[in-house]
Amino acid sequence: MNRKGLAILMRTRMRLTDPNKLSVSPNEASRVQSDTGHSESDENFVRVASEGYVQKINSPSNSERDFNVVRESMHAAISMNKTEVMDAILNNFSEGYHSLSHDNRRKLLIALARDYDVNRKQVRELIQQYLGLEFPGGDKSQPTTFDEGGLLAALYRTERNLRHALKPMYQILFERLNTHPGGLKFLSILRADILSMLAEENIASLRALDSYLKEKLVTWLSPATLELHRITWDDPASLLEKIVAYEAVHPINSLIDLKRRLGIGRRCFGYLHPSIPGEPLIFIEVALLKNVAQNIQEVLWDHPPIPESEATCALFYSISSTQSGLVGINLGKFLIKRVIELVKKDMPHVSTFATLSPIRGYMKWLLFKLGSQSKLAEAEKEGISCSLERSSSSTFRENILQPEEEKALLESSVEFTSGENGMEMMLNLLTSKNYEWTKSDRLLSVLQAPLMRLCARYLIQEKKRGKALDSVANFHLQNGAVIERINWMADRSEKGLSQSGGIMVNYIYRLDKIEENAQSYFATGSIQASSDLRRYLQPEKEHEEKTT
Amino acid sequence: MNRKGLAILMRTRMRLTDPNKLSVSPNEASRVQSDTGHSESDENFVRVASEGYVQKINSPSNSERDFNVVRESMHAAISMNKTEVMDAILNNFSEGYHSLSHDNRRKLLIALARDYDVNRKQVRELIQQYLGLEFPGGDKSQPTTFDEGGLLAALYRTERNLRHALKPMYQILFERLNTHPGGLKFLSILRADILSMLAEENIASLRALDSYLKEKLVTWLSPATLELHRITWDDPASLLEKIVAYEAVHPINSLIDLKRRLGIGRRCFGYLHPSIPGEPLIFIEVALLKNVAQNIQEVLWDHPPIPESEATCALFYSISSTQSGLVGINLGKFLIKRVIELVKKDMPHVSTFATLSPIRGYMKWLLFKLGSQSKLAEAEKEGISCSLERSSSSTFRENILQPEEEKALLESSVEFTSGENGMEMMLNLLTSKNYEWTKSDRLLSVLQAPLMRLCARYLIQEKKRGKALDSVANFHLQNGAVIERINWMADRSEKGLSQSGGIMVNYIYRLDKIEENAQSYFATGSIQASSDLRRYLQPEKEHEEKTT
Repeated sequence: MNRKGLAILMRTRMRLTDPNKLSVSPNEASRVQSDTGHSESDENFVRVASEGYVQKINSPSNSERDFNVVRESMHAAISMNKTEVMDAILNNFSEGYHSLSHDNRRKLLIALARDYDVNRKQVRELIQQYLGLEFPGGDKSQPTTFDEGGLLAALYRTERNLRHALKPMYQILFERLNTHPGGLKFLSILRADILSMLAEENIASLRALDSYLKEKLVTWLSPATLELHRITWDDPASLLEKIVAYEAVHPINSLIDLKRRLGIGRRCFGYLHPSIPGEPLIFIEVALLKNVAQNIQEVLWDHPPIPESEATCALFYSISSTQSGLVGINLGKFLIKRVIELVKKDMPHVSTFATLSPIRGYMKWLLFKLGSQSKLAEAEKEGISCSLERSSSSTFRENILQPEEEKALLESSVEFTSGENGMEMMLNLLTSKNYEWTKSDRLLSVLQAPLMRLCARYLIQEKKRGKALDSVANFHLQNGAVIERINWMADRSEKGLSQSGGIMVNYIYRLDKIEENAQSYFATGSIQASSDLRRYLQPEKEHEEKTT
Repeated sequence: MNRKGLAILMRTRMRLTDPNKLSVSPNEASRVQSDTGHSESDENFVRVASEGYVQKINSPSNSERDFNVVRESMHAAISMNKTEVMDAILNNFSEGYHSLSHDNRRKLLIALARDYDVNRKQVRELIQQYLGLEFPGGDKSQPTTFDEGGLLAALYRTERNLRHALKPMYQILFERLNTHPGGLKFLSILRADILSMLAEENIASLRALDSYLKEKLVTWLSPATLELHRITWDDPASLLEKIVAYEAVHPINSLIDLKRRLGIGRRCFGYLHPSIPGEPLIFIEVALLKNVAQNIQEVLWDHPPIPESEATCALFYSISSTQSGLVGINLGKFLIKRVIELVKKDMPHVSTFATLSPIRGYMKWLLFKLGSQSKLAEAEKEGISCSLERSSSSTFRENILQPEEEKALLESSVEFTSGENGMEMMLNLLTSKNYEWTKSDRLLSVLQAPLMRLCARYLIQEKKRGKALDSVANFHLQNGAVIERINWMADRSEKGLSQSGGIMVNYIYRLDKIEENAQSYFATGSIQASSDLRRYLQPEKEHEEKTT
């Protein structure tokens, strides 16, 4: 079951890249399996997951017959009332579901969304009844005398009935699964599948089902139900296995590596739900340091640089969620707050709580900008007017480089690459294979200024629907953090370079400000950033001193 | 807190007799305090509760100022969004509430019901929007093409909004309290107060609030969240104290008595909820016997009559719920099923699962019947026609005694009492002080036939809204039990005689029938009774052999 649970989940994750980017992305998940050839024990350690994984994806059923069997059990799970057999029915259903192919699952979920939807006929009737009663419109303060009348009673009754009628029939299935052993986990798997299907195709009924299921999960996974657990080397392997499998930020390469993550100078905390035992829904890794780390090497040491008693900073260097089906349910918020409180209580000498975080979307955003803008620049040169009709705002003509930056680039880069303008040159440099640019001190120093400045702009100014465009930034900002500092060449790993040109960012959590910051970000989308960071956004002159 | 919690609860119970009659009724609660003068330890044992109790009811605030303060905190608890201070706000509110007088609580709860009600203005607007969309009426199977359209998306969106708008504002308070330490307990106290107020006066808005709160409690207290705990002498006194305080059926008189209830030959199980630690919501006492006990003496022995290994019957002799605020939320159903499974697993040699239960409403019903019918009989004699206009059905002319019964009564009772007819005579006998009738073998033998027969009728035929009139019968029938046997002079205690003329009843749980019986009782109100019991309802002849 455990083995299978994980296996299924991994299959799900294979199909689905977690939108909030806090969980394993496909390539990371596969790396977990490939990287671990170092020792016997490692292999055994991970094989559980990978075996299960293989075993599962070999046998999904595409047959019409199997589909109908599972559909039957789903119907029973919704319509039956015999509590004595309900457990068996729900087990049948989830077992059956797991055995289905992606297409059959899709068919089944759409059937669930459509055939067990809201009873619109009944809703309409109740609405007519409701409108039939002349009641005190929006007025709340009804005189007592009013209460005595049966009219108000009828009003309340009709409202209750309408409230019930508006519940889709599939809520019965959700409720029953929630109180069924293993059901909550199964629901999160269902939702992971739904999300992946919605990513392929937008189906209104399925989207409605998802939003309803999400609402339910939010209440069922309220912080009150989550238990904060300090994960140590003494925890069962079945739990540690999941830390290895789901570590999203800095993959764990070996058992020794894992042991270090749980050893002296470090902490690992996870949120567990009583209904999903032995599997943290989200976990956070903390390093105890003297100062806020500027690069990942300061964190991924083999031996603690200082005794814990000398630590003044707790650095969150990795947060991973294990359930792709819980996307959009912010478990991290309370986790971080509670971890801070726990650490403070445990080690009063720790006063700074910060992160060293990746900037996952930076390069993607920058390369797109450089590409489109350099094209626009050329087009303009050739006298082709750039009409405002052009699609996205990013295509308005704009030299995203400062004059000095462009000048420096053109001067120093000719021997490395060609390009009609600074932006095209920068694009070519950044996309040169094996990240050649990182191997030349000259190029590094030339690129540092624009890369750091544009990174600050990306983090502070680039938004999507009023929230930070960068998903990790959005995560920490909504939890009340401040963008404190960006660090040059903080992560030279292939992943670090491809995601953010090696830049990493420190978010800082100030206990007395967390709530306030979270509120104002939530309300107005205003992003809290340090003055150091803001300086990047001011005219060239000032920030020269800063970055060089 | 614990001390206070219990104190508050006891105050609540003092005001409220639990409608489902499964918890301590006022006089029983007070008896718990008065009866326990036997040993030092006893007194200490109960003083906790009583002291708290006294201390609390001396200081309820009736002042307008205090009311407004609490109302403010209630408003904050609903309208605030700062999670960091929410705990403090909720604590303020519950502390404040507890300090209020009954009148102020009443004012506050009505304010909650009215001022934080459904936003009807919004509901009306959304209904208009909804009706504005022409959607596929009751038809569920929309063609895929339909899904793509934004129309359906709008439909789902409007339904979701309407669903939300129909939630009263006070649900925020309930949700927040539920996830707040001690909040669930506080909610059950709130509801206990609401029920007591509704018993005094029917206020539509308050009734709506109660039904909404009840719905919530039902989901929050789902069997999945309840932990079945075997209560033993090793449990903390703070928990055992509650067993003493809430034992509803056979009051516990001393520590020694309590120790026996938990010792060899007996079992005690309770349902605990993680949010209400150390306080079973409901508990059940079991005696391990050779046969189904016919009277309470067979159960309340001081020393086990047989070794547990020889037991073949598990007799449920007491079920008590501790939370008057959870009335109408059937916790007992799953408790009994799970206890049966547990006992079976633990002791395969136990094959019979039965109860020895009181018949709380029998005498009340019988004395009313005898009174009204004897009057009617007299009226008729005097030639006053008894019009059908007469209010309740119980006032239709009916001699509830069989000819032989009446004859025997008239013959043997003259020396004890007078009366125009058998019914009046029976009434006089049964209401004679100190239950004189139980001290004469002659009267006992004369009264046995009618009392047993009418008891069977009361249990099997007398109904209220299609359910058994007797609340305990209703409880066991809805849990799938069968009425097996009624036992003459099974409980000669003052309480036993006043409630049921000393008669007790055995309900039997047959594992393979529980679900079926519960279903048919729920659906059709059909009551399962043994052939022995049904025989009482057949013509005199046959049952003569039976009862004598």
